[in-house]
Amino acid sequence: MTLAAGVLEGNRLALARLLTHIENDTAEGRAALGELFPHTGRAHLVGVTGAPGTGKSSLVNQLARLIRNPGGGQAPQRVAVIAIDPSSPFTGGAILGDRVRMRDLAGDAGVFIRSMASRGSLGGLAATTSGMVQVLDAAGFEIILVETVGAGQAEVDIARLAHTTLVVEAPGLGDEIQAIKAGILEIADILVVNKADRPGAENTERALRNMLQLAHPVQHTFRHHGTLESVSSAMVQPVNEQPIWVPPVLRTVATEGSGMEQVWQAIIQHRQHLEASGEWQQRERSRLETELDGLLQATLVSRWRNQISAQEYQRVIARLVERRISPWKAVEALLDGDQA
Amino acid sequence: MTLAAGVLEGNRLALARLLTHIENDTAEGRAALGELFPHTGRAHLVGVTGAPGTGKSSLVNQLARLIRNPGGGQAPQRVAVIAIDPSSPFTGGAILGDRVRMRDLAGDAGVFIRSMASRGSLGGLAATTSGMVQVLDAAGFEIILVETVGAGQAEVDIARLAHTTLVVEAPGLGDEIQAIKAGILEIADILVVNKADRPGAENTERALRNMLQLAHPVQHTFRHHGTLESVSSAMVQPVNEQPIWVPPVLRTVATEGSGMEQVWQAIIQHRQHLEASGEWQQRERSRLETELDGLLQATLVSRWRNQISAQEYQRVIARLVERRISPWKAVEALLDGDQA
Repeated sequence: MTLAAGVLEGNRLALARLLTHIENDTAEGRAALGELFPHTGRAHLVGVTGAPGTGKSSLVNQLARLIRNPGGGQAPQRVAVIAIDPSSPFTGGAILGDRVRMRDLAGDAGVFIRSMASRGSLGGLAATTSGMVQVLDAAGFEIILVETVGAGQAEVDIARLAHTTLVVEAPGLGDEIQAIKAGILEIADILVVNKADRPGAENTERALRNMLQLAHPVQHTFRHHGTLESVSSAMVQPVNEQPIWVPPVLRTVATEGSGMEQVWQAIIQHRQHLEASGEWQQRERSRLETELDGLLQATLVSRWRNQISAQEYQRVIARLVERRISPWKAVEALLDGDQA
Repeated sequence: MTLAAGVLEGNRLALARLLTHIENDTAEGRAALGELFPHTGRAHLVGVTGAPGTGKSSLVNQLARLIRNPGGGQAPQRVAVIAIDPSSPFTGGAILGDRVRMRDLAGDAGVFIRSMASRGSLGGLAATTSGMVQVLDAAGFEIILVETVGAGQAEVDIARLAHTTLVVEAPGLGDEIQAIKAGILEIADILVVNKADRPGAENTERALRNMLQLAHPVQHTFRHHGTLESVSSAMVQPVNEQPIWVPPVLRTVATEGSGMEQVWQAIIQHRQHLEASGEWQQRERSRLETELDGLLQATLVSRWRNQISAQEYQRVIARLVERRISPWKAVEALLDGDQA
């Protein structure tokens, strides 16, 4: 039996092994992805991002628990977590694993947790994450939580990968104004002020709401009818009758589980919005295009590398280091054989 | 007169214009880079990075002032600052410019400051920064400070670009343990605890020193002879007689200018270490190789895009979205014309 067949049958060992193949980008992994791809497209991908110290890991942990035990007569859904650990770009080794933190979910067959080091190349990270998501999707996990740390390109990549992106903030992490500079607000579908029992939570929430007004001009429509706080539903009906998603700002204390139900409901509402507005299909398409572009780029470069001689490459590098040719001339020399 | 010639003559308007060409990746910009490249290789590139809220901008500002007014009979050096503003990856627009903050340096011909939005592609950002650094280097700026926000790939790219990398921390920005997870310690040549007048500065410093012991095993050699704190010089002579750089941990209150002299001396010492150990040349070479790789990749992709028909591309995307072919099959179809 192939690993892919094992994954489709619900074999967890096959799943874990295949994810390792994906992480190492092996031929077997690629073949399995091809086999599994027709079985993908059902999972709801939820990105969870935010600066260090915001308590993302606890939030993801609690969210996974809630999805497994939703209460109110709702059926539990199968949930997978990919925690991208931006440990060491140079050694590739995580100093502290965070698999431990999910201990209380261990033993539940409806939960699968995987940590991944962020390693060197970012294109590589995006491609690996995308491959892992496909495997977990094909394996029947209905919700896939992808957790990343930091503020920057990784968050943009997650926003491109996810259907729904949660941005987690916390009070007292320096100037709220910094959040704008990091630009992560624009990728947020749902904003969470975690550690909301700490001093300054109101200020953080207010700052986020003010910034949302700048980032989402449609909200100005509603300012004439009332304050932003009065917009109770996240999904609102603007003047042109197109459903527009206004990111809700929610408060949580994830370590105590408080506010988590609202977060989960917002995720469900966001999915409904995406489906009703046709945006789900758009995001699927743009996600696949982004993935294709990444794979194309990697393939073009690796094919080129396989056909250039190491000697020729070293000769050009040497001329570059001596500053006898410029970097652009070096590219021309390598690609076109110019003896500039 | 070409822009490049203007830059070599010290014309600031030509410099500003050329940097805009570099930012927009124009043909004129590329030609000028070729013209200027033989004049590069003299500047000391210093990367300054750290999480939002650590006060990096103030630190860079004070450092630039100190480099212009070194005191103690030292000659002032010409200093350029590239502040990479990670504003909006989607709109490309900075909500808050930070050019204002350098107001007190305005009017000094020995200082040049440039802010840059981080925009979409990271490859693009690295290439643009590298091009700007070359221009400023050719223009005769002896110290080039490159400031970035965040923790992630951007910091790794800076470490690859810079000769010396400063990582700035501050007390009270959440668990110190998070700093490890972000992995930025491994790229640090100099660690700065800024806002050292705030509560918790000692803890932050101690946590950094403890983590350094993990990240730099060579220090264990010295633990037998005394505590880490007793190693007063940053450059030490280990058992094998090779000079090894142990990143110093320095305290500053940048807004008051305190501790800045120590930071500047550490930067000077690090350069001396790089030159004495031969690492300066190694970093130069690896920097140029990284830049070449980025340009090669971008060129391969753009050449391929220019020769593929939009129709063919859309046809493959459609089959991908319908999940009739996998992403890897789509790559093969596009590159090899497979009708899989």
